[in-house]
Amino acid sequence: MAGENQEVQVFGFRLGPYSLRVELALKLKGVVYKHIDEDLLNKKSDLLVKYNPVYKKVPVLVHHGKPISESLVILEYIEETWTQNYTILPKDPYQRALARFWAKYIDEKVVPAVQKVARSQEDEREKSIEDAQAALEPLEEELKNKLFFGGDTIGFVDIAGLVLARWIPATEEAVGFELLSAHKFPNLTKWSQDFVNHSVAKEVLPEKDVLVAFLKNVVFSTKN
Amino acid sequence: MAGENQEVQVFGFRLGPYSLRVELALKLKGVVYKHIDEDLLNKKSDLLVKYNPVYKKVPVLVHHGKPISESLVILEYIEETWTQNYTILPKDPYQRALARFWAKYIDEKVVPAVQKVARSQEDEREKSIEDAQAALEPLEEELKNKLFFGGDTIGFVDIAGLVLARWIPATEEAVGFELLSAHKFPNLTKWSQDFVNHSVAKEVLPEKDVLVAFLKNVVFSTKN
Repeated sequence: MAGENQEVQVFGFRLGPYSLRVELALKLKGVVYKHIDEDLLNKKSDLLVKYNPVYKKVPVLVHHGKPISESLVILEYIEETWTQNYTILPKDPYQRALARFWAKYIDEKVVPAVQKVARSQEDEREKSIEDAQAALEPLEEELKNKLFFGGDTIGFVDIAGLVLARWIPATEEAVGFELLSAHKFPNLTKWSQDFVNHSVAKEVLPEKDVLVAFLKNVVFSTKN
Repeated sequence: MAGENQEVQVFGFRLGPYSLRVELALKLKGVVYKHIDEDLLNKKSDLLVKYNPVYKKVPVLVHHGKPISESLVILEYIEETWTQNYTILPKDPYQRALARFWAKYIDEKVVPAVQKVARSQEDEREKSIEDAQAALEPLEEELKNKLFFGGDTIGFVDIAGLVLARWIPATEEAVGFELLSAHKFPNLTKWSQDFVNHSVAKEVLPEKDVLVAFLKNVVFSTKN
């Protein structure tokens, strides 16, 4: 465990995948931190606005009073700062580049494609599902003969991918569509199950039922 | 100079800021490479599609036959692979995080805002300029009391920012608007000038007139 004098705070949201990336990485490394919950449905806290004046959003990691924003940037910082115990990124520069590429791909291609499905009208649903499945295919391929994207252990892409492992199945249930079928995506399906059952991931991931209710009643509510 | 046996190829486009990030980083480090020009206006080459099957776009860095895509990912690879001569990212993890944050900010906030100005209709021009200037303000602030974002030398954010130093002024001229005025952005204006006159940057950046003609007649042409 990191020393008690390492003051680490995470401004986050318990049902937000980006915040939980940061918390999962810290837990994997055994870094003790304080979670400061931002109620994103109400007013943003003054501290959040102070620490992340550009985006005013979570997650923000504050280490010894210094704030860092953007989950993938924070993961790199965590890897470089707490080098002991657990490694998120491989040592080889080429393998590191691939990990960074796929994490960026998840944020820029997969997440928007899945959100498009969830917000699609009935007449565009099928096409949006095809697009999202096309976006998921390279990740299915990446997992061939591997337990995790990081190999035998959870790494950078897995941590970035927690949005897929828990949020996609919960969104499917909340909105009512099928995207990540075991038939079409056997590797991603198995990976999702292994991921959400991983002892450390379990500590930070929200219960599926709680997330489904939140997605159904708040994020993708048709009542707004 | 890196050894002759380091086979390095860059699949790029001479008027594309993302390709030139890669070439500038290699030149700053004194790495000998071969530029393979992709004619983006015509059919993509089979090699480009082979090396970047996910996005099929430039830049791609190929090192000893292994391809890497996404300019910021490639910059990290270059920094980790050719550690001699020149440093792109600071050593301190916090300073590294800030550099990554601002580079990402340029790609995700500034570039889209400037493109929106260039593509705006007359009635939305003023509002889009205000938005783009608001996006530029944090960068203006970042340059206070500094020659470059990297301090005294060109670093990660500067390299990412070459799109600002050369492409914004060229786009202003090609389309006909004013965004980066010396009055409103004295630091960015001075930085732009220092940047485009930097001996190594000069080697890779396109001539302004050539770029203006390309932006005017191809990218932002109203004839399409």
